[in-house]
Amino acid sequence: MKWIYFFDEGNANMRLLLGGKGANLAEMTNLGLPVPPGFTITTEVCKLYLSDPSGTMEKLMPQVKNSIAELEKRIGRKFNDDTNMPLLVSVRSGAPASMPGMMDTILNVGLTKKLIPTLSKFTNLRFAMDSYRRLLQMFGKTVLSIQTLEEIFDEYKKHNNKKLDIELDTSDLEKIIELFEKEYENHGKFLPQDPIEQLKMSIETVFNSWNNERAKEYRRIYNIPEDWGTAVNVQAMVFGNMNDKSATGVAFTRNPSTGEKVLYGEYLVNAQGEDVVAGIRTPQSIIEMRDKWPETFEQLLKISEKLERHYKDMQDMEFTVEDGKLYMLQTRNGKRTAQASVKIATDLYKEGIINAEEMVMRVSTEEIEKLLHPQVDPNYKVKPIVKGLNASPGAAIGKVIFDSKLAAELGEKGEKVILVRPETNPDDIAGLARSQGVLTARGGMTSHAAVVARGMGKPAVVGAEEININLKEKYFSVKETIVREMDIISIDGSTGAVYVGEVKLIPPTLSKEFFELLDTADKISQIGVKANADTPEDAKKAFEYGAKGIGLCRTEHMFMAEERLPIMQEMIIANTKEERQIALDKLLPMQREDFYQIFKEMKGYPVVIRLLDPPLHEFLPKEEIINKKIEEAKKQDRKEEVEKYQKMLEKAESLKEANPMLGFRGCRLGIVYPEINEMQVRAIFEAAVKLHKEGQKVNPHIMVPLVGLQKEIEVVKEKLEEVAKKVLQENNVNLEYKFGTMIEVPRACLVANKIAEYVEFFSFGTNDLTQMTFGYSRDDAEAKFIPYYLENNILTHNPFQNLDTEGVGQLMKTAIERGRSVKNNLEVGICGEHGGDPKSIEFAYTIGVDYVSCSPFRVPVARLAAAQSTIKHSKKEVKLAETR
Amino acid sequence: MKWIYFFDEGNANMRLLLGGKGANLAEMTNLGLPVPPGFTITTEVCKLYLSDPSGTMEKLMPQVKNSIAELEKRIGRKFNDDTNMPLLVSVRSGAPASMPGMMDTILNVGLTKKLIPTLSKFTNLRFAMDSYRRLLQMFGKTVLSIQTLEEIFDEYKKHNNKKLDIELDTSDLEKIIELFEKEYENHGKFLPQDPIEQLKMSIETVFNSWNNERAKEYRRIYNIPEDWGTAVNVQAMVFGNMNDKSATGVAFTRNPSTGEKVLYGEYLVNAQGEDVVAGIRTPQSIIEMRDKWPETFEQLLKISEKLERHYKDMQDMEFTVEDGKLYMLQTRNGKRTAQASVKIATDLYKEGIINAEEMVMRVSTEEIEKLLHPQVDPNYKVKPIVKGLNASPGAAIGKVIFDSKLAAELGEKGEKVILVRPETNPDDIAGLARSQGVLTARGGMTSHAAVVARGMGKPAVVGAEEININLKEKYFSVKETIVREMDIISIDGSTGAVYVGEVKLIPPTLSKEFFELLDTADKISQIGVKANADTPEDAKKAFEYGAKGIGLCRTEHMFMAEERLPIMQEMIIANTKEERQIALDKLLPMQREDFYQIFKEMKGYPVVIRLLDPPLHEFLPKEEIINKKIEEAKKQDRKEEVEKYQKMLEKAESLKEANPMLGFRGCRLGIVYPEINEMQVRAIFEAAVKLHKEGQKVNPHIMVPLVGLQKEIEVVKEKLEEVAKKVLQENNVNLEYKFGTMIEVPRACLVANKIAEYVEFFSFGTNDLTQMTFGYSRDDAEAKFIPYYLENNILTHNPFQNLDTEGVGQLMKTAIERGRSVKNNLEVGICGEHGGDPKSIEFAYTIGVDYVSCSPFRVPVARLAAAQSTIKHSKKEVKLAETR
Repeated sequence: MKWIYFFDEGNANMRLLLGGKGANLAEMTNLGLPVPPGFTITTEVCKLYLSDPSGTMEKLMPQVKNSIAELEKRIGRKFNDDTNMPLLVSVRSGAPASMPGMMDTILNVGLTKKLIPTLSKFTNLRFAMDSYRRLLQMFGKTVLSIQTLEEIFDEYKKHNNKKLDIELDTSDLEKIIELFEKEYENHGKFLPQDPIEQLKMSIETVFNSWNNERAKEYRRIYNIPEDWGTAVNVQAMVFGNMNDKSATGVAFTRNPSTGEKVLYGEYLVNAQGEDVVAGIRTPQSIIEMRDKWPETFEQLLKISEKLERHYKDMQDMEFTVEDGKLYMLQTRNGKRTAQASVKIATDLYKEGIINAEEMVMRVSTEEIEKLLHPQVDPNYKVKPIVKGLNASPGAAIGKVIFDSKLAAELGEKGEKVILVRPETNPDDIAGLARSQGVLTARGGMTSHAAVVARGMGKPAVVGAEEININLKEKYFSVKETIVREMDIISIDGSTGAVYVGEVKLIPPTLSKEFFELLDTADKISQIGVKANADTPEDAKKAFEYGAKGIGLCRTEHMFMAEERLPIMQEMIIANTKEERQIALDKLLPMQREDFYQIFKEMKGYPVVIRLLDPPLHEFLPKEEIINKKIEEAKKQDRKEEVEKYQKMLEKAESLKEANPMLGFRGCRLGIVYPEINEMQVRAIFEAAVKLHKEGQKVNPHIMVPLVGLQKEIEVVKEKLEEVAKKVLQENNVNLEYKFGTMIEVPRACLVANKIAEYVEFFSFGTNDLTQMTFGYSRDDAEAKFIPYYLENNILTHNPFQNLDTEGVGQLMKTAIERGRSVKNNLEVGICGEHGGDPKSIEFAYTIGVDYVSCSPFRVPVARLAAAQSTIKHSKKEVKLAETR
Repeated sequence: MKWIYFFDEGNANMRLLLGGKGANLAEMTNLGLPVPPGFTITTEVCKLYLSDPSGTMEKLMPQVKNSIAELEKRIGRKFNDDTNMPLLVSVRSGAPASMPGMMDTILNVGLTKKLIPTLSKFTNLRFAMDSYRRLLQMFGKTVLSIQTLEEIFDEYKKHNNKKLDIELDTSDLEKIIELFEKEYENHGKFLPQDPIEQLKMSIETVFNSWNNERAKEYRRIYNIPEDWGTAVNVQAMVFGNMNDKSATGVAFTRNPSTGEKVLYGEYLVNAQGEDVVAGIRTPQSIIEMRDKWPETFEQLLKISEKLERHYKDMQDMEFTVEDGKLYMLQTRNGKRTAQASVKIATDLYKEGIINAEEMVMRVSTEEIEKLLHPQVDPNYKVKPIVKGLNASPGAAIGKVIFDSKLAAELGEKGEKVILVRPETNPDDIAGLARSQGVLTARGGMTSHAAVVARGMGKPAVVGAEEININLKEKYFSVKETIVREMDIISIDGSTGAVYVGEVKLIPPTLSKEFFELLDTADKISQIGVKANADTPEDAKKAFEYGAKGIGLCRTEHMFMAEERLPIMQEMIIANTKEERQIALDKLLPMQREDFYQIFKEMKGYPVVIRLLDPPLHEFLPKEEIINKKIEEAKKQDRKEEVEKYQKMLEKAESLKEANPMLGFRGCRLGIVYPEINEMQVRAIFEAAVKLHKEGQKVNPHIMVPLVGLQKEIEVVKEKLEEVAKKVLQENNVNLEYKFGTMIEVPRACLVANKIAEYVEFFSFGTNDLTQMTFGYSRDDAEAKFIPYYLENNILTHNPFQNLDTEGVGQLMKTAIERGRSVKNNLEVGICGEHGGDPKSIEFAYTIGVDYVSCSPFRVPVARLAAAQSTIKHSKKEVKLAETR
């Protein structure tokens, strides 16, 4: 096994072995880009190290020494050389998946006190001393765990009235170095004066940083395997802090916030390494470089285009300019906002860089979901208290929290909080993950807070420099306004605005690319998407979002409307069929109008209407309320009313159930009281006939709920089809229609062949099917034991969110096989909440489901998931986007 | 197709074509017994007739005429012969299944007015005239629907002070014939004076009687197919009413009430046909014949033995003696009481007439069930008000009802009624079927009431002649005692005693044959029987009834005991693990003692103990009760109690669930609060160790309820086995034990292979599995819609009574296959209520279940069902008992 690869020995496909950074440094080296030479110690070595540290180091170090010798040859500089410009190296972590800032890095390794004059000779004294100061500070903190150095440094600056690092002169640096050395002594530590020893300790530190707390937390959030390990990159240093012709910077090949095709980024003149990302100094925009250093800018632009074409995706690059010369230190697929993701994918497709399938795979369903989040109403009149940088779009509303740990705790409990910090660093990751959004006073568009928030899809406003944060007394102020911890604020990451209190939110405006992407997705998909919609408004929204029909129109909500409920109650408390019929006759025209409007909105696409499903007691007031009504009526001596409510009370009592979920509902109601279903079917067909006569196509599907027995569907269907035919005959109209059934009782799956004889479609009610297959009452289980089960890994996921493919899914598979064994053109859909869940959609596709139906707001997500499922399981191999 | 078979052309196996009576007449004829000659018109003809009456009769009658000609040749008598003894025939129904008295019979067909002198010449005038009177009466009622004739006849007798038919002399008969002829005229009807015409009309009447109301009702009760039809038997008449050397009678080859091996029956001298069965005259015991007509008796005894050996079962025979000569008119397997059934089957086995398998198949599980019904306590001190004949054993308690229709109505509603009638006839069948028992004033051991009650297994006391029934005023009296309709009485069909009010009942005494039968059954069975028992008392009863272990010991009932409930509640309202542990420590010794006693009773057989299953709120009082307790405690200023109940109220509220069946119960409890299960397992093993140390074998099986996820059983089992091992180690004892799981959640069936990895046995909780597979909450469904579903044939049976093999059964099959695919010696049981249902046991056997477990009182039923299932599905062919 090879433990060490020089950059020219690797390539971009070796990221599991070399880590993302190592693999990309190798790829760039082989592309002929100006990369300082270096080598990578593999992730395999890291794994060996973590199980046997000293044994592994013993075997590793001779190889490292050989590699340093080789490196010395290649670059023409040497470790410990006090006659020529000496070799310094950076030692950086680099895991197979991007974990920005989570693990350790040590720069300027190889510098010793005795080399300062030499370094000074070949550069300048201030640079040499600042480099040593940096090494002392970074090595001390990272390798030797001396946590006080930064404080000492900040103290010194404050005391001497110096704001920026570059304001420090050589005498300042000398004093700081002295202070640092004293502090080392206080800790009983020292900086090894042997470059190889420095290197060895740095490598060990990087290995160990795989298991620091924040890295573990990050892996948990992003599902990164614990056993991957990190590679270690040892690279010759180039110096962005050498002089004023030097700089360090970060650039994206396209705007990561909007997706616009422009070189985008920031740089800091005379600065080193982490200064940009850490957000300590607000850097200059890359655009300024065009004027100041036109040649360097031109070179960077060309490299940027080359890298993008090579990687077929937007790149996030790190570079350093040393005394006017450009070096590339890193490239990777850039994190981006959801909006940018859609724009970049569709643009790359239009530019011919990727094909349609690649475009569809490039955008994640989570991104689509984020785009559908509500936004701040642009007509909202209240003025923001401050404006910062619009670092990650979307609106967030929550309580102000200044402490990451507290934010994490409250967020865990379901409270909505906004993390407010001067700046963030990797230690804030848990708090960020559980906040609605983040607001910082310092840092730019590529600062830690901005990058992480974009990655998590959380709204972020950064660098709002007008706010003054008092962490001790827990408030921030903007001019006269004071906002205390637990006060509610709203932030708009799309505009950078910050508001006190709750702002008004409106549905998002969606870009033209958004719809282009989904239209292409639809062409690829082999599983359709419909919507669950009970009202004309929902139907309209569903149509706008691209639903090809309604997969579930629940009729019970129609009875809940204020003016209808009393009639519904009249129907329920009726003692005879005749009394019941009187109430039903009143409901008929109302239902007819509902259906008419919904059909109209759906413009001829199928509308699957589920007949009355919930237990009747859901339409009656609670018993204590009826009792109050009786008392009131008695007091006022309204005898008729007393009688009515007494009748209602009796009915409510007789309808009471121990387990209503498993009770007198669904088709059971329709069988015992057929006149209810008959009214509904009449309303449906009369509405359809009306629209048909007006010249619009209309396609009603009648769906019977909760069927478990062949006889149920046989009896119900025969009776109802009679009604349908009668209405059509009365009107002398011919219409396409279908009869079908919900499959939501486990037994229905087992006897699906018998049920299929009577229907043209199945629609899985996966909510109820999950409840009955698991024996979980959702209301009870999610409150009582599912959280415990998830925390303790008894359940790997909540089966009400992601379909349980192992249990419920197997029943569905059985149902489809059995159903189609007697009717091979049987149409099969899903209309539970899982219909909008990408993982569930993928499973549905694999078992032969024809369409999924979900809430209108999830239709775009489902459309993309449907296309991605089709692509993943098609024979054509599509190159998937690398982990970003 | 052959339409008509002479008796010598058929045999006993042709009952579907010739009907039971025709097939047995054929068989007897071929055995050389004295059977009057005749022929059978097949059931196929009946079916043709019912769809095309006139067309069928047109084709049938020429064949009937030919057959009459042949019959005339064989017997040497002729239709319409006024010079010799003329031929008269009986025309009798005879369906493939016995339907006693349900369809029509016409006797003396062929007699015309002009033949009276001829018949008189060859016999005597009184006989000739009585025969004509009978024909007029029977033909008039049955064929011509003149319903008034019997009334006229009874009126005449009353008016002329004649009690019995035989007291009527020739002048009486002449007058009666005149009255009958006048009544015929009043109805515009006449008796055809052509024998062939009489025969034709009689055949049509018998065909039509297949569809009369009482026949339909009978078929419904006994599940006899509607499309079988009845055969018609036309047979030369022999006359039991010819003179005093003539008689008609019924005999059983063994006592149908006790099973004792003696010729048993009754006869009436100088009487015809239906006089015995109708119960109008109380007949003489057959034993009297031995002294009076020794030769005839001897002949009958020999025939009886021959028939029994031939049919290998107890026979119910009809015979007629004509002028001293014995004729056999019918034989069939005799109806018998449950007690007799067991005795006869075991005796026939011991006599070598049938083998062990035949014996086991001969007794039905319903009969075993009846034997387990409670009986009147023999030490009961109250004196009966009257004693009648002990016609069908068992005790019945209910309201006196005099009208069959009312009895049927009330019985349907679930009220317990006892039908009290002077005598019963086939019109009473619906009322009888829905009564607890029957009491009649008239009729013997073979009267209609006696025969039908025995067939239905209902207690009957008949011929209690001391009771005077006043049907109009709705009471009966015995001496001074008056019992009105709706008063409660008790009858003891085993002794013939009738009591006013409710008697004390005790468990039944079971015969030695009962246990012999079941022991033989056990040897045949390839599926075991265990019992569900929660207490030492239940365990003891189960052991007595032959259970080979306990298949379900529910532990929750143990917590419900008065002194334990407060401790259980203390455990539930505990806020910390420590508080909970204090309560559990108090419960531990109590549970240990429970288990110790149960293990002791089971003498080393396996005891399957289910860990705590029900939701915790079941152990708390209802909220209104807690509220009352709080108020009380407040009034009396008991602060501690107020606090305690307030805590309890809070807990009760937090434990409240929308659908407790699908809520926080079963292993879900055990996972969230592992200390409860740990206490239980400790109690179990400490009890086992104690008994083991006392030298008794003990075999505990731990069963985890409501498992649906692999992780659940993994986590629970690992923790609990640790406890078990710890207790054994502490005591330095080694014991056989097993860990297993309930399979009662549909998902468990689907992932049975994953669950099986962790357990040694499965036990199907078919109650819950049925609830979840159907989506029926039993409490709600059985109250709300299952009755409607059963009435309207949406469900063919209640799935909580007979296992749903199509749905639930398929899940069970899947579970067994998947479970054994990873563990082929996995033990599988059933512990739902279906474990005691014979049909469900048969299904369980076919899918490879190892044992069923049922309530102790159903253990004998299950043992027989287990053996019968084994026999039915074994390759050996066992001749099953014919329908009786």
